[in-house]
Amino acid sequence: MSDNAHGTLILLRHGQSEWNASNQFTGWVDVRLTEKGREEAKRGGQMLKEAGLKPTILYTSLLRRAITTANIALDEADLHWIPVIRNWRLNERHYGALQGLNKAETKEKYGEEQFMSWRRSYDTPPPAIDVDNEYAQTNEARYADLDEIPRTECLLDVVKRFIPYYEEEIAPRVARGETVLVAAHGNSLRALVKYLDNISDEDIAALNIPTGIPLVYKIDANGTVMNPGGEYLDPEAAAAGAAAVAAQGEAK
Amino acid sequence: MSDNAHGTLILLRHGQSEWNASNQFTGWVDVRLTEKGREEAKRGGQMLKEAGLKPTILYTSLLRRAITTANIALDEADLHWIPVIRNWRLNERHYGALQGLNKAETKEKYGEEQFMSWRRSYDTPPPAIDVDNEYAQTNEARYADLDEIPRTECLLDVVKRFIPYYEEEIAPRVARGETVLVAAHGNSLRALVKYLDNISDEDIAALNIPTGIPLVYKIDANGTVMNPGGEYLDPEAAAAGAAAVAAQGEAK
Repeated sequence: MSDNAHGTLILLRHGQSEWNASNQFTGWVDVRLTEKGREEAKRGGQMLKEAGLKPTILYTSLLRRAITTANIALDEADLHWIPVIRNWRLNERHYGALQGLNKAETKEKYGEEQFMSWRRSYDTPPPAIDVDNEYAQTNEARYADLDEIPRTECLLDVVKRFIPYYEEEIAPRVARGETVLVAAHGNSLRALVKYLDNISDEDIAALNIPTGIPLVYKIDANGTVMNPGGEYLDPEAAAAGAAAVAAQGEAK
Repeated sequence: MSDNAHGTLILLRHGQSEWNASNQFTGWVDVRLTEKGREEAKRGGQMLKEAGLKPTILYTSLLRRAITTANIALDEADLHWIPVIRNWRLNERHYGALQGLNKAETKEKYGEEQFMSWRRSYDTPPPAIDVDNEYAQTNEARYADLDEIPRTECLLDVVKRFIPYYEEEIAPRVARGETVLVAAHGNSLRALVKYLDNISDEDIAALNIPTGIPLVYKIDANGTVMNPGGEYLDPEAAAAGAAAVAAQGEAK
């Protein structure tokens, strides 16, 4: 290995889903990508290919929008054949009783302050969803291994369930010099970026991750990030995308 | 467990690929599904769902047409999230120097007897492909772990590389009562069916597996097939599909 040897961690947030399009809180509800979301995934795959990045393994959540994004992107990059590991710990934050509600209507009903608290509070989760709510995950086979299926989560809960898994399963691969693709969600990726860039509980509220644009971290054998903040493969589009995420809740 | 407890093994041959459509020998060349092939995969997933079959794990080859078929079928069956294991041992038979050639032209050039021998001889492979042929897999990253990348194979070669893997990795799951989906290819599935139904080296020549229609074996804890020959989820379509496979080489 050369003296600047490093592993590569690539984060990819799924493209537009049906409920992104309709501006509803999604969380663990397993909605599909829209056609626009599929195009974003394809473009993400092209960016990987153009950058000459070749992940040797993929990690995804158990949710269709991340799985489909990865399938499309890797197919586009001619890497459809790499091993994949799926785990619920990469899932989006569970949005509790908000799952299924329209974001703009919720903001109108509860006010800006409560709305932003539910979206961005680090340690206060929204109200728990009823087990018999149509958007709860009660008795879903894919979560049969969990002691208890979450009924709501704050970002701290996501950190607690995802970061130990990252440290145990993913970080050692990167430290060994592998190139790992993590295809996941706005809040599971925010939890990971918080950890990688050592962002405070307060400052993480302002961080938005754009959809469909690979974010690349170079990490040395000690696990130290060599390029703090990472590098988006399309920085201009990334800045515009992050602003769009921040503006959610405005339009109905 | 009830006294008729059994595991379930579901075989799914990929739908129409670009080279099925253009009637070219494909083998290890990594062509895409056609739109018709994607529709077949979708229908296959619907059949799984209608039959109430819920695979708990998927095995595929390293080839795009099997991987995409499985992705589409499982998404349709709401089982996109199950674990997947991909291995080159499930790949299609390597077609040697025939890879890329038109089937009808090959038949015309070499005659019916030679043509059928290449397609159906159990133990005589076609001529080996040159390592610098554009359709050879020389230096492909996905096969980096192999001691030697095949340059041609007969069905016996496929049996030798796939059946020990089946016995080691897949059969124990089925014997434990799991439901396993194997998404693969005409000849890797013929190798498996030969093994499961104890078909002779001669008789296997006449067996054709239709595309996109799940073939279901019930297997007990001792590994004994309880429904010899298996059951297609759509027997009528399966019979028509097998006849269509047998007729390949007729049309250009």
